[in-house]
This record gives sequence, structure tokens and C-alpha cells, in this order.
Amino acid sequence: MPLSAGGIPGPDLLARARLLVDPDLDASLVRALERITGRHAEPMGSAPPDGVPCVCVGATLPDAWRATGRPVWFHSVNAGTDALLASGAWPAGALLTRTVGRMGERIAQYVLAWVLAECQSVPEFAAQHARAEWRRIPSELVAGQTALVYGTGRIGAAVAGLLRGCGIRTVGVARTARAVPPPGFDRVIGTGEDIGALTTARWVVSALPLTGATEGFFGADRFAAVREATFINVGRGATVDPGALETALRDGSVRRAVLDVLPEEPAAPGDPCWQLPRTVITSHSAGITAPDDVAADFAACWSDLHAGRVPGLAVDVGRGY
Amino acid sequence: MPLSAGGIPGPDLLARARLLVDPDLDASLVRALERITGRHAEPMGSAPPDGVPCVCVGATLPDAWRATGRPVWFHSVNAGTDALLASGAWPAGALLTRTVGRMGERIAQYVLAWVLAECQSVPEFAAQHARAEWRRIPSELVAGQTALVYGTGRIGAAVAGLLRGCGIRTVGVARTARAVPPPGFDRVIGTGEDIGALTTARWVVSALPLTGATEGFFGADRFAAVREATFINVGRGATVDPGALETALRDGSVRRAVLDVLPEEPAAPGDPCWQLPRTVITSHSAGITAPDDVAADFAACWSDLHAGRVPGLAVDVGRGY
Repeated sequence: MPLSAGGIPGPDLLARARLLVDPDLDASLVRALERITGRHAEPMGSAPPDGVPCVCVGATLPDAWRATGRPVWFHSVNAGTDALLASGAWPAGALLTRTVGRMGERIAQYVLAWVLAECQSVPEFAAQHARAEWRRIPSELVAGQTALVYGTGRIGAAVAGLLRGCGIRTVGVARTARAVPPPGFDRVIGTGEDIGALTTARWVVSALPLTGATEGFFGADRFAAVREATFINVGRGATVDPGALETALRDGSVRRAVLDVLPEEPAAPGDPCWQLPRTVITSHSAGITAPDDVAADFAACWSDLHAGRVPGLAVDVGRGY
Repeated sequence: MPLSAGGIPGPDLLARARLLVDPDLDASLVRALERITGRHAEPMGSAPPDGVPCVCVGATLPDAWRATGRPVWFHSVNAGTDALLASGAWPAGALLTRTVGRMGERIAQYVLAWVLAECQSVPEFAAQHARAEWRRIPSELVAGQTALVYGTGRIGAAVAGLLRGCGIRTVGVARTARAVPPPGFDRVIGTGEDIGALTTARWVVSALPLTGATEGFFGADRFAAVREATFINVGRGATVDPGALETALRDGSVRRAVLDVLPEEPAAPGDPCWQLPRTVITSHSAGITAPDDVAADFAACWSDLHAGRVPGLAVDVGRGY
């Protein structure tokens, strides 16, 4: 049994493990990982080296690694691990951790940027300027408006906190309602109660992960409840039914859409998504992790494991996040 | 002597005064002013009616009114009163008040919108989308950056407070330094000490009014101290030396400029300002007051005057704001 009680690799196992890294990793990140672990990094090839436990850092896990017990710990350079988990059975007993980094802060600033850009007509002013056109455009004040934020984890909470700082009322949507809302939220309701709340929202922000329960979550029923809200998706593209979104944009129930994520990425130039009315697609850029973010989160996991703690960044591979 | 002690019109005088309004005012605003004062509004013509004290509401004061003692109180629908004061001698003894409304909040959201739009590449993503181009663009986090905010009154403080909520360090610049900074500011320095502070700023925001002391305030000396900061002007255009700004944009010391105000407005299509590099001009829109804002601020002044208080929105006509 290579894992310590609690299903995490213990210090003895980590001391023997080799460090295998995705060949695409940034060189400064690889050096940081070597410093943290005190060993040389080897490129993660198509199959694991024989007979040794491995600590792996990367974005993807090749198939030949999955059937082995070799990876005792895989640290994902991304926050979303749905693609990693969906592309094959997860190796039995291997710990999976993820990089959140300053992603909450990044995504919160992304969401607020697009909220305020709409209220302050940023794209319209850029276009007017290009035409050398002087025309006053009144702004829309966000104070007192309501944002529905789907997902009340680190990212949803960071989004809500920043919106709330501008006077926006923040309602979180989680699997179950909470009597005491976490910081950043005025209220947290359960997913069963959100249809009514959608009718009052000026902003609908999704930070949902992709799981069996969230695939196609934003479908015709939810979009039909929206009353000219702007829909911002910083979670996963496949949580949205694209046909239902298009209908809602065409009939005006969705005022605008800001989509950082799509069901299939990257979108080709001929993809019909580019023709959606009043929509901006931002190429999955809201939460790009910097090499420093990955190193900092890996170091935190490393430290947790040496203290015998389950890392705060561990993924429940059954639940999917 | 038509004014009460303290230089403000007292209740007796207000009871006898007629209500004269700029013919361009919004009809709903005129109705609100009639409700507040309990009298019928008359259009403000080229000359005042004979022999009666007048309460005036508008943007401009015709010349023939200035030499008379007829306006006992002029309420400006704008926050900036430099144009009103510059276009002729102010009538002796007439109280001048102004509309700030939710202008602090509006301008703060304007500034934060443009700060985050730059860090989150909002205009670039809008342009990419128009070209159906999928390309990831990393964001810039604002936390830990420094903003220098010129003007520490209501508007400057609102701007600073919102920037600070995103983790930006806010340094106010006022006529004199303050040991205890007002809410929203980490520090307040005096205008004599700002050159050094300019070298550390990522954002330079001006909310300065136009007075004799601020004309051409942002000149070659200040721009030479800037190290790739973005310059955002929500104050008055004439506080900036246009040639010095252009030089700083061309040599890169000013990274970008967001100009809500210009020395001469509106800018004609052929104005060279449209050709400044990395600049957006937003047509004096950051603080457009809504009719509700004017009515609310007029009502507050009306109430102050009936209580014998100098209104908080009174302008020192000597100082200019």
C-alpha cells in the first residue's frame, strides 16, 4: 500500500518518488519545482519509468500512465480537472491536486471588467474613438442591481466579493441553500430555487465546474426565466446548451453574453459561435495561471503532504472537483 | 441686504423668490423642482424679471443676469462650475451650489471600468471577436499596483475607494498632505511631493477641478516623472498641457491615456486629439448627471437653506469649487 492513511502519499513515499513534468511546462516553473522537491525533473513521457513512484506535474496524463500505480500524486497546472478525469480512468490511489493560484482574483477582475465595460460602454467608446466621433453616452450605475453567481467555491466567492464592492447584490447558487452565506454573498440559494431568482438578475455569472450534474445545466428552462440579464460564463462551456443560449440571445431574454469558455475549444474561424448576437468570446483567458501560481500551489500541497494533511487543493476524483 | 448672516438666502427671501429654470432642462426635473419649491417654474430668459429675487437652476447664466442682484441662488446642474464662473463676473452676493449627485459613484465606476478593461484586454477581445479569432491573452492583476489620484474631494475619494477594493494602493494628491488619510486613501500627499510618487504609479487619475492653480498642471515636468503609467482624466481638460501629454505618449512614459475631458469640447472629427497614440476619448460622459441627481441635490440645498445652514454643495466662488 503506497499511500498513508487518509489516501495521501506520506513523506517516505515522496522521498523515493521521481519528479516527472509535462515537457510543455515553462522552464522557470520546472526550476521552481526542482527547488521545492530537491530533485531533478524528468520529462513525462508516454509511459512511466519502471518500478518507481512518481510525482507528476502537468496538464494531461497519457493513457499508458493510467493503468499503473506509478503516479502517486498528480498536480494539475489547471483549476478545472474535468478533461483530465474524462480522458480515461483515474489511476487507482493517485492523489490529484490542482492549481487555483490567484485564479479567484483573476476571474473576479475579469467578471467585473466585463460588467463595468458594459455599463460604461467601453467597446462603444473604443469604436467611436476609432471613428473620431464625439458623442456622449450615459453610464449605467450597478449599485442595487442583482448578480446571480453559480458556484460558491473559491472562484464564485471571489467574483461575488468584487461585485458586491460596487454595490451589487450578490446571490450565490450552490447545490444546497445556506443559512449563513459565505463572505461575498448576500444570500446563497439551492439549485432548485434559482429559476425564480433568475427573473430578478441583471447579471448571471456561472463559475460552475463540469460534472455529470452540470452538463447542459443552462438550458431552455433557465434561459426562459432570464429578464434581459447579461450572461457571463467563466466556468465550463459544456454547462451551457448552445441552442438554448442562442434562442435566448435572439429573443432578447439574454441581453448580452460574455463567454470565456465554449463546449468545444478552440473555436475555429468558421464556428457559428462567432455569429451569436451581442456576444463576446474571450478564448478561455479569464483564469490563465502564471508559472508562479503553479509553483506556489504545488509548494502548498507539498507542505501539506509532509505534515500529513490532505491538501486543500486536492480534487475529489469521484465528485470531479 | 437680501442675504441672511453667513451669506446665504434665508427662508423669508426664498419664500418671495421666483423659480427660474434653464429652458433646456428635462421636463421631469422641472416638475420635481416645482414640487420641492412649491411654486411654478418660469423659463430663464436673457434678462431677469424686474424687482424680484430669483432662484435659478441651470447650466449657464446669461450676461444680463450677472450685473443684477436678482439671482439670490443659482443651482448648477453640473459639478464643474468653472465655465459658469469664467464666462463673466459672478453676481454679487448670489449663492452658487452645484450638482454632485451620484457623480462620485459614476466616475469611480468609469475609472475602474477603464483600469480593468486595460488589464483584461476588453477592447482587444472585442476586436478579436469581430475577426472570429481565438487567441488567449493573459490578464494583468491590479492588486499591489499603485494609483495616484489627484483630487481628494468627493469624486477623488469615490475613485480611490473603488480602486482600493481591488487591492490597488491609493495615494491621494491634495493641496496639502494629510496625516490621517480620508476613507479610500492609503496616503494623501501634497502637490509639492507628487513628482517622486509619479515614478511608482501604474495609474495616474486626475479628478482636479479647473482653477487658476490647476491650469496646465499636468505638464512636461509631471509627465517626465511617469514610468509607463496609464493616465486617466476625469477632471478638466485644461489641467493638461496637450503637447506634453502627446510627447509622453509618443516616448512611452505614458502607457495609455483615457481622456473624458479635453481643453476644447466637443472635439471636431479633424481634431488631432483623435490621433494620439494608445488613447481613448470618451466625450465627457464619465459623470453625466441624471435629472434625479439634480433634483436630489437641489432638494438637499433647499433643506439646508431653510435650516439656516450653508449647503454642503455650495461653491466658494473665489476658489472656484
